[in-house]
Amino acid sequence: MAAHSESPTPREAFTFALPLRVRWSEVDRQGIVFNPNYFVYADVAFTEYFRALGFPYPQGFEESGSDLFAVSAEGRFRASARYDELLEVAYRTARIGRSSIRFEVAVYSGGALLFDGALVYVNADPETRVPQPLPPQLIGHIEAFERTPPATKEAG
Amino acid sequence: MAAHSESPTPREAFTFALPLRVRWSEVDRQGIVFNPNYFVYADVAFTEYFRALGFPYPQGFEESGSDLFAVSAEGRFRASARYDELLEVAYRTARIGRSSIRFEVAVYSGGALLFDGALVYVNADPETRVPQPLPPQLIGHIEAFERTPPATKEAG
Amino acid sequence: MAAHSESPTPREAFTFALPLRVRWSEVDRQGIVFNPNYFVYADVAFTEYFRALGFPYPQGFEESGSDLFAVSAEGRFRASARYDELLEVAYRTARIGRSSIRFEVAVYSGGALLFDGALVYVNADPETRVPQPLPPQLIGHIEAFERTPPATKEAG
Amino acid sequence: MAAHSESPTPREAFTFALPLRVRWSEVDRQGIVFNPNYFVYADVAFTEYFRALGFPYPQGFEESGSDLFAVSAEGRFRASARYDELLEVAYRTARIGRSSIRFEVAVYSGGALLFDGALVYVNADPETRVPQPLPPQLIGHIEAFERTPPATKEAG
Repeated sequence: MAAHSESPTPREAFTFALPLRVRWSEVDRQGIVFNPNYFVYADVAFTEYFRALGFPYPQGFEESGSDLFAVSAEGRFRASARYDELLEVAYRTARIGRSSIRFEVAVYSGGALLFDGALVYVNADPETRVPQPLPPQLIGHIEAFERTPPATKEAG
Repeated sequence: MAAHSESPTPREAFTFALPLRVRWSEVDRQGIVFNPNYFVYADVAFTEYFRALGFPYPQGFEESGSDLFAVSAEGRFRASARYDELLEVAYRTARIGRSSIRFEVAVYSGGALLFDGALVYVNADPETRVPQPLPPQLIGHIEAFERTPPATKEAG
Repeated sequence: MAAHSESPTPREAFTFALPLRVRWSEVDRQGIVFNPNYFVYADVAFTEYFRALGFPYPQGFEESGSDLFAVSAEGRFRASARYDELLEVAYRTARIGRSSIRFEVAVYSGGALLFDGALVYVNADPETRVPQPLPPQLIGHIEAFERTPPATKEAG
Repeated sequence: MAAHSESPTPREAFTFALPLRVRWSEVDRQGIVFNPNYFVYADVAFTEYFRALGFPYPQGFEESGSDLFAVSAEGRFRASARYDELLEVAYRTARIGRSSIRFEVAVYSGGALLFDGALVYVNADPETRVPQPLPPQLIGHIEAFERTPPATKEAG
């Protein structure tokens, strides 16, 4: 298929990965996972990643009174997954800003990369949606968890 | 919310737009459309866009014996849609390559931009997934339909 | 396929029907609509039915401070719908109880019945889930709308 | 909430159960699992049940050249599941007919019953949809697996 210019984040950069089996409901008429479902998989990994961090979502945000809202998503479909295939969904924090945070996701099957992408979220007040600094406790948990440290950035 | 650096494609560049009402099943616990559903909306618009072109999917591809496979997707969540909100999903061909084609999508509510993104597909043999030139008939239909002509590119 | 013992509610009993086109995301590997999606279609029809009644959901319930919660669902898959097929989703109130209400749904394609089913909801306090009498205004709107009057029942 | 007249199949009747965690995408604006998703959960359990039987779906049907098609579904929503809740989805064969087979499903949380239902499928030729006898091998695997034997029925 078409070559992707960007080279993917190597598997070793991901500390966290989740086994996930393709459901019948996720496969389309072409016999392969319907593309938006890779973003659903990323969302499932988001939940489990926060649990693995020891900062479960959304309870960890209760103290700060904020919540994460998705700002952008992107992904590259490199190969297809089929019904009942056992996948590995790797997830990591790639960059920590002031109020924004960038996660990377990669979906593997038998070691082969099927999908990779990135999700950016902003920490904000649930009512006003005004951005707020990321909870320092969250940053601490991420830094303690990730073997490959995320980039940091002044602006956010 | 967080500023998006990229400026969106203006509404006037889209010849095609589809009215679409937010379903209960598409809204999450935050009361807003779950993010991957914007890519589902893009897919609904894909179908209706091809119908509007006069090159219905997938029948139009039968002669060439090829099919379109998604290569990449990206999008920016600029504001939230809620249950029962009536949206407008604009869709256009942004770039025609040799075997690849880039579509842009933008979701509006009452004239305000909620989401914009891009989808790249490659035309390929359904069995081997080897890329094939886009059907010339498809290109003709697009050129006749789009008021704002798509970019073209040698490689693809 | 297997014969269904129950004979379906005739098309004429339905005052309301909604055109609905099958999405790519709703079709499975067998090339047909994945069965739980018929209940999603019923839910889409629920929203449009309440709008047609002039008692939009959930705003109509605000005065009573209650909400509808699903109690049961049933359906018979009589024939298959395919990608891009234009369906007609008929919806009606079949029985009005004290706090419960039974809706019937039927999905047609070109006049042929593909699916029929029933959904029972109870009107309840959103916090305590204690059943409450159905809003009299809702009952009035239903009685004014339905050409075939729903059954009524003392208990609910 | 409204009382259900039918008493549910007891937990002990189920030999098979699958742990399943509620996804963010499955929860609606009321903060609870959107009702049709219980039928999706039943479908996930279907796959794992066939694997547990040693008659994986759909490979087990290849020899017979047939496939299972859903005929009917029913369910009672007894209590609500919430985001991230860890559920137990129990699944069993309740009745074996000539070409039809009835499964029961029950979803528990912490031992409490949230949902119970039944799915009927018919074994049929994938092209003609003409019913065929259930593969004898499948029946053998079910009888060997289920501690509580399914009912059998002449007609089907």
